[in-house]
Amino acid sequence: MEQVSANRSHGGTQGVYRHASRETGTEMTFSVFVPDHAPGAKLPVLWYLSGLTCTHANVTEKGEYRAACAEHGIIFVAPDTSPRGDTVPDHEGYDFGQGAGFYVDATEAPWAANFRMRSYIESELPELVAAEFTMADMTRQGITGHSMGGHGALTIALRDPGRFRSVSAFSPIASPLNCPWGEKALGGYLGEDREARRDYDACALIADGARLPDLLVDQGTADQFLVEQLKTSLLVDACEAAGIPATIRMQEGYDHSYYFISTFMADHVAWHAKRLKA
Amino acid sequence: MEQVSANRSHGGTQGVYRHASRETGTEMTFSVFVPDHAPGAKLPVLWYLSGLTCTHANVTEKGEYRAACAEHGIIFVAPDTSPRGDTVPDHEGYDFGQGAGFYVDATEAPWAANFRMRSYIESELPELVAAEFTMADMTRQGITGHSMGGHGALTIALRDPGRFRSVSAFSPIASPLNCPWGEKALGGYLGEDREARRDYDACALIADGARLPDLLVDQGTADQFLVEQLKTSLLVDACEAAGIPATIRMQEGYDHSYYFISTFMADHVAWHAKRLKA
Repeated sequence: MEQVSANRSHGGTQGVYRHASRETGTEMTFSVFVPDHAPGAKLPVLWYLSGLTCTHANVTEKGEYRAACAEHGIIFVAPDTSPRGDTVPDHEGYDFGQGAGFYVDATEAPWAANFRMRSYIESELPELVAAEFTMADMTRQGITGHSMGGHGALTIALRDPGRFRSVSAFSPIASPLNCPWGEKALGGYLGEDREARRDYDACALIADGARLPDLLVDQGTADQFLVEQLKTSLLVDACEAAGIPATIRMQEGYDHSYYFISTFMADHVAWHAKRLKA
Repeated sequence: MEQVSANRSHGGTQGVYRHASRETGTEMTFSVFVPDHAPGAKLPVLWYLSGLTCTHANVTEKGEYRAACAEHGIIFVAPDTSPRGDTVPDHEGYDFGQGAGFYVDATEAPWAANFRMRSYIESELPELVAAEFTMADMTRQGITGHSMGGHGALTIALRDPGRFRSVSAFSPIASPLNCPWGEKALGGYLGEDREARRDYDACALIADGARLPDLLVDQGTADQFLVEQLKTSLLVDACEAAGIPATIRMQEGYDHSYYFISTFMADHVAWHAKRLKA
């Protein structure tokens, strides 16, 4: 792992790192904020999965998480959203291919070789973080994300409930089985078998029996993607039917941008901190 | 004035606006954050002048000022740093020409026609803000800025002490008369007469008798420009010699970036709020 940059910020260190990924077959870049801490202290880890088109940089620059993470003593890890580069397959749309990994392990050609973001987030990157950041307490992990990354956070947590003590999301894609982004991406990465997509659909996973201890979601009412793509109401219904105690807040007038995310970031960090430090 | 965008954020509205400037002869873009407020309420205005290469967008995206401005009920205005466009003279360096207006009214050709950032910030933009934002209380203004914008904030406030109730800066260029950035820019915009530059040098203005009621400055010790360009110690000496009660804080390990600015932004907004709402 190579350090790309390190900047002192909010009483901690904001780093950016690069490594050769065995899962994606490419170099991958991610950011980690480590608050100052006592020697030997172990800090919980909050994962943030980004949305379509984003790299680690969007939330690192605009997410406004550092003050809250420093206050609560939480490490914040922000991965990229897909493999990238000239040798990696791509697609002309913003919603498929590079920048749009959807946190799946692709099975279809030509995507299957590189587009392994599920395994990257579930296995490779946690192993790397645990090895390189000795202050990271991998027994206390939380996960959140935005839009496609909210979908990633929910589905990864639902498939492996033992790993995360806390789960939240900002304007998640509630059900890729039921929206155009999901049709295109899961169809492209996984093929025509719709059953295979249930592993990558929060509502389907819940319907199939997966559970979370609780859940915090913020969703802007002025989000341009709410009605056609995000469909928060499907997540509300799924949690209700399954008895998952979900706090799903519709935020009046907020849109899909980092102006929205940054507004509620401190709330989410505090919500995770309460559970990670309980 | 045309609204380019408006996003709900941190309990207020982050807007971006464009207008045809009489001073620069170009279209100019700036951002304004207006916290929610009671009908008829008048809110103080905090100006933020940006540094070399920046537009309004850098601080708007990375400055982390909105939470504090919403908490204190303060309008935050972020102008551009120069005229821009194909019809405007430019220079190949990042530190002169477009993106580097240095908050002067240029007198030298070919700059004099467009590079009138002093008059733009001192007269035209305040008039526009007063006319278009009826909740702005122009009797309660504060000013801050970063680097070249810190120089701008200090010199504008020193030349017109009646206008601002509060002044602060992040890593300001303390004395353009005594650093390469200042030599190049003030020499280029104002010509060889070094006396003419004293109006654009905080330390010279103080030596010549200008005063501020007090002052807050934050400066990172790991700032790559500290020794050669910023020279904070000259400002410390000038304030001491003049009896200006300045709080100039050297922040250990911080650099020149928005990772530094955002860390101390809430402190600055609170510092201005105390004086603007006294």
